[in-house]
Amino acid sequence: MAGRHLQPELEAELVEVAGLLADVAGMAAVRLFRSSQLTAENKADEGWDPVTEADRQSELAMRRVLAARRPTDGVHGEEFEPVTGSSGLTWVLDPIDGTRAFVSGIPVWGVLISVSDMNGPLYGVIDQPYIGERFEGGFGRAVMRGPYGRRSLSTRATHQIENAVLCTTFPEIGTDAEKRTFQSLSGQVLLTRYGLDCYSYGLLALGQIDLVVEAGMKPFDVHAPIAVVQAAGGIATDWAGGACHDGGRIIAAATEELHATAVGILAEGLA
Amino acid sequence: MAGRHLQPELEAELVEVAGLLADVAGMAAVRLFRSSQLTAENKADEGWDPVTEADRQSELAMRRVLAARRPTDGVHGEEFEPVTGSSGLTWVLDPIDGTRAFVSGIPVWGVLISVSDMNGPLYGVIDQPYIGERFEGGFGRAVMRGPYGRRSLSTRATHQIENAVLCTTFPEIGTDAEKRTFQSLSGQVLLTRYGLDCYSYGLLALGQIDLVVEAGMKPFDVHAPIAVVQAAGGIATDWAGGACHDGGRIIAAATEELHATAVGILAEGLA
Repeated sequence: MAGRHLQPELEAELVEVAGLLADVAGMAAVRLFRSSQLTAENKADEGWDPVTEADRQSELAMRRVLAARRPTDGVHGEEFEPVTGSSGLTWVLDPIDGTRAFVSGIPVWGVLISVSDMNGPLYGVIDQPYIGERFEGGFGRAVMRGPYGRRSLSTRATHQIENAVLCTTFPEIGTDAEKRTFQSLSGQVLLTRYGLDCYSYGLLALGQIDLVVEAGMKPFDVHAPIAVVQAAGGIATDWAGGACHDGGRIIAAATEELHATAVGILAEGLA
Repeated sequence: MAGRHLQPELEAELVEVAGLLADVAGMAAVRLFRSSQLTAENKADEGWDPVTEADRQSELAMRRVLAARRPTDGVHGEEFEPVTGSSGLTWVLDPIDGTRAFVSGIPVWGVLISVSDMNGPLYGVIDQPYIGERFEGGFGRAVMRGPYGRRSLSTRATHQIENAVLCTTFPEIGTDAEKRTFQSLSGQVLLTRYGLDCYSYGLLALGQIDLVVEAGMKPFDVHAPIAVVQAAGGIATDWAGGACHDGGRIIAAATEELHATAVGILAEGLA
């Protein structure tokens, strides 16, 4: 999908501010990653959905930057109340996506930042500050910077479901019916990998995997990933093939053909 | 468990050589990690167990160093024929442990290196060269070096199964009976994380998780992890509580109490 654009000066400012947000959030999160001071609280009514001081510190650091640099934009973050803006632009923030990995010391969590309007994300960043990897997509950019340099983002040409590598947050997130449907898809792919949360969208954009399928998503879980995947030439929709920036059931795919096949299998599973 | 020792000069030499092995193996593996030249071959009779040119290059690089620096030691590596030595010491090598993660672009694979004698590993290294993390255990050493500096390795004081974070290579490896038994344990812990292979033993030694339980292991999968976990104060045995350096069913735990509880649950599951 061709990316949407704003005025070049505005795009440059938004990209710069997003970079600052990733820097301050990453510092706040890394300071508590693997720290003995870190304790997780449960925010789920049933089961265990952890939130930590690192989530709060990371989001507060971003909100301080936005209040100074983009005071008329809206802010929609996971941990605090939404701020309504007047510019038509909203920053959609997940200060730590993948808190289960974070509290287990596994460096595949990420900071998610997107600039969105009513029609969804325009530009997004997935940042993994412990490894030092940043995936960016939108406004004509599709790039990853990591410990071994810069790379363009581009999904790979996988067309057959039996050759696909699939990533997911199942079994932790999603209903039992969604899990069973997911399993009917998972049984047909080459390989399934678990527990990567946002990092899997970065890998899809980098051409390392082919499908991400999950459910029970919130808007802040998906805005930045959608922007990054679309900028890399991939497709991100809900399980029925419609817009997915409000969250829920998400499928992201490397190619149109693979997307169509997977959507068909999911539809059959839910029927 | 108190670590075993050799002569100080010999220990220093073995530690230095192990560091060299990790350096050359890491360079060989990182060169092909996420490369478009990488292709995976299937080495399983049933299912999909990938091996790549990176596995072979990484092991060859280590064998060249050993031939020059430790010509009388034995070598037991995953990809090539064993070399019988005369020194009483054997290098047990897995050039890329976690090849499923490697071929999916996920940086939680590792190079495994141990120096072992007839009674099992004396000293081991788990190295993740893309992130730049190295876990070392044995000869009085228990340390991790990473992008944010050095840290001592020490397992954490988790005693209750309901508070434990568990890592595993299930569902990909192990028989159906072993999987069912694993699930009876997994249902009792706080959180289960999948697909981390050797990296989970590093996290256990670092005090980030509490249990690793898996099956179908080979000696080269477990020698270095055993050395690292034991040096950090943890326990590594087979599911019945016996020695595990020949592979098979492995359980590693942060504390004696947690180990005893988990071994009890596994015994009940297999009965």
